[in-house]
Amino acid sequence: MGDLLGTGLLGANPDEIVICDSTTVDFYRLASAALEARPGRRFIVTDRANFPTDRYVLEGLARDRDRAIAWLDPDPIDGPTVDDVAAALEAHPDDVALVTLSHVNYRSAAIADLHSITELGHAAGALVLWDLSHSAGSVPVGLAEHGVDLAVGCTYKYLNGGPGAPAYLYIRSELQAELRNPIQGWFGQADQFEMGQGFRPMAGIGGWLTGTPGILGLAAAEEGIRVSVEAGIDAIRAKGIALTEYAIALHDARLAPLGFSLGSPREAARRGSHVSVRRSDARGLTQALIEAGVVPDFRAPDSIRLGLSPLSTGFTEVARGIGTLARLAGGPAAGA
Amino acid sequence: MGDLLGTGLLGANPDEIVICDSTTVDFYRLASAALEARPGRRFIVTDRANFPTDRYVLEGLARDRDRAIAWLDPDPIDGPTVDDVAAALEAHPDDVALVTLSHVNYRSAAIADLHSITELGHAAGALVLWDLSHSAGSVPVGLAEHGVDLAVGCTYKYLNGGPGAPAYLYIRSELQAELRNPIQGWFGQADQFEMGQGFRPMAGIGGWLTGTPGILGLAAAEEGIRVSVEAGIDAIRAKGIALTEYAIALHDARLAPLGFSLGSPREAARRGSHVSVRRSDARGLTQALIEAGVVPDFRAPDSIRLGLSPLSTGFTEVARGIGTLARLAGGPAAGA
Repeated sequence: MGDLLGTGLLGANPDEIVICDSTTVDFYRLASAALEARPGRRFIVTDRANFPTDRYVLEGLARDRDRAIAWLDPDPIDGPTVDDVAAALEAHPDDVALVTLSHVNYRSAAIADLHSITELGHAAGALVLWDLSHSAGSVPVGLAEHGVDLAVGCTYKYLNGGPGAPAYLYIRSELQAELRNPIQGWFGQADQFEMGQGFRPMAGIGGWLTGTPGILGLAAAEEGIRVSVEAGIDAIRAKGIALTEYAIALHDARLAPLGFSLGSPREAARRGSHVSVRRSDARGLTQALIEAGVVPDFRAPDSIRLGLSPLSTGFTEVARGIGTLARLAGGPAAGA
Repeated sequence: MGDLLGTGLLGANPDEIVICDSTTVDFYRLASAALEARPGRRFIVTDRANFPTDRYVLEGLARDRDRAIAWLDPDPIDGPTVDDVAAALEAHPDDVALVTLSHVNYRSAAIADLHSITELGHAAGALVLWDLSHSAGSVPVGLAEHGVDLAVGCTYKYLNGGPGAPAYLYIRSELQAELRNPIQGWFGQADQFEMGQGFRPMAGIGGWLTGTPGILGLAAAEEGIRVSVEAGIDAIRAKGIALTEYAIALHDARLAPLGFSLGSPREAARRGSHVSVRRSDARGLTQALIEAGVVPDFRAPDSIRLGLSPLSTGFTEVARGIGTLARLAGGPAAGA
């Protein structure tokens, strides 16, 4: 099932992805292993706009492993650039152990330059870890093509595995023998049901399993992954672009006159499959939208995030959702 | 839902149990936090008959945190005794950080003396962590009554949550402020949906959540916990004793003459709700039983474990299961 996701949607090689635990636990395990693999280096590079669980995990690791975080403060819409990362690496020469960012920003949907940032990290001697939660199943990733070291993500968002669906963890084949799993669980043991003395990890990515995977969650995630692979990532991406272009056109026509501004990049190539719109009363508007049957996410301080999942969202739904928002925000009645 | 399990079945106080992740991940987090809380002490006491994932996690922690394991080698049927633990504590005076055992042994079903071992550990200045996977929902535990510090377990076995169902983690109220969660996830953040800068854990046991809990798994576990609470742990325990007494009587009458021996304690008070029977060809017999529609577990090297879940197993099933085993093992045909 890891291979279905990895080779079918993420551009990984076989035996590089395993599905288990939560994004938080998998992120902790990979970041922890990366720090252990770069013992002489003090800094972790990430950005303040990164998803909260990634930031909180890194703060805990920095505390427990005597490391420090070199925080980037990127543009809130465009996200961290290659120049931002280059500056951080230059500020701490030969002292960065790990660079870790989200591929698609959870708030603005900005796509980071995965290829160039991975190259930069490698040139500086760091390992590079990507969070794919908002890109897997919505935009092509190309893990092998871009030489990515490490990645994690959830099957909740575009893979339709449902809330709290199991996460996944990717380790480039060449690194698998070098990195050590900090949580040595019985599902990673080579001869699991011998239950013998002494942990000996299974060869390959299977050694990164921990405890018994949740079968109910895996069953749902498997179906979500299967239909995404069947649709094909290129077709999914094309529809994602069309949906978000349409949402932005509707924003410009109906929301901008009411004082909204766009919280996502305008250039389709720089944007994933969600769109954020901003106004100072976004919190109350989100609540009103949910009561009217349109379910977005509020993202502090002023964003309404509209998740447009290519497999399940139609154009009429985009029109209805934004029409409802325009009406609630004081515009003419929907359909008027 | 943690409180339903904690106060309804485990004798915990409110706000001492949270349900999330796997037993392996929760065990790692508590053992890791316990070591951090006893920085000057080198040893972890556990037994070689402990469940594999507990042993493997401890080996990883000992490696990463520069600690050592003081292994107990208890009797394979009776499990670790108070004297075994006392001897290990005396061998390493003021140098044991953590004592951790399973309350009910996964193979023999032996019940460890939770009260006395917890007292011994405290007298030696150690923290004590119990794995309740094979006792929760089958025998009374009494966490508050016995002053237990830390516990973990699964909802898979007697709580009927299904394979890979979410695990739980218990921290005595008085310890919650002292211990630090090594995996700081966004579900443990005090103001989670502000998604602000800097991890500030929720007060109480909620700060030990990590990532998004798996909702499908929780829904199944909740139902399993609810029916167990409704039945009541005393009634469950009474039926568990009756089922295992019956299984042992059948073993003596039908299996012992065929060369089997009992792999569980004969005294009901010293035994949980499963029974192991031993013969050198147990592996092949387990396979034959499964093909005949009776599903036990093989446990190396020579045990067939019969799990008798009080809520769902009837006496006629015990008779049929052991009758089938007797027939497959060369005895007279079942019913003869």
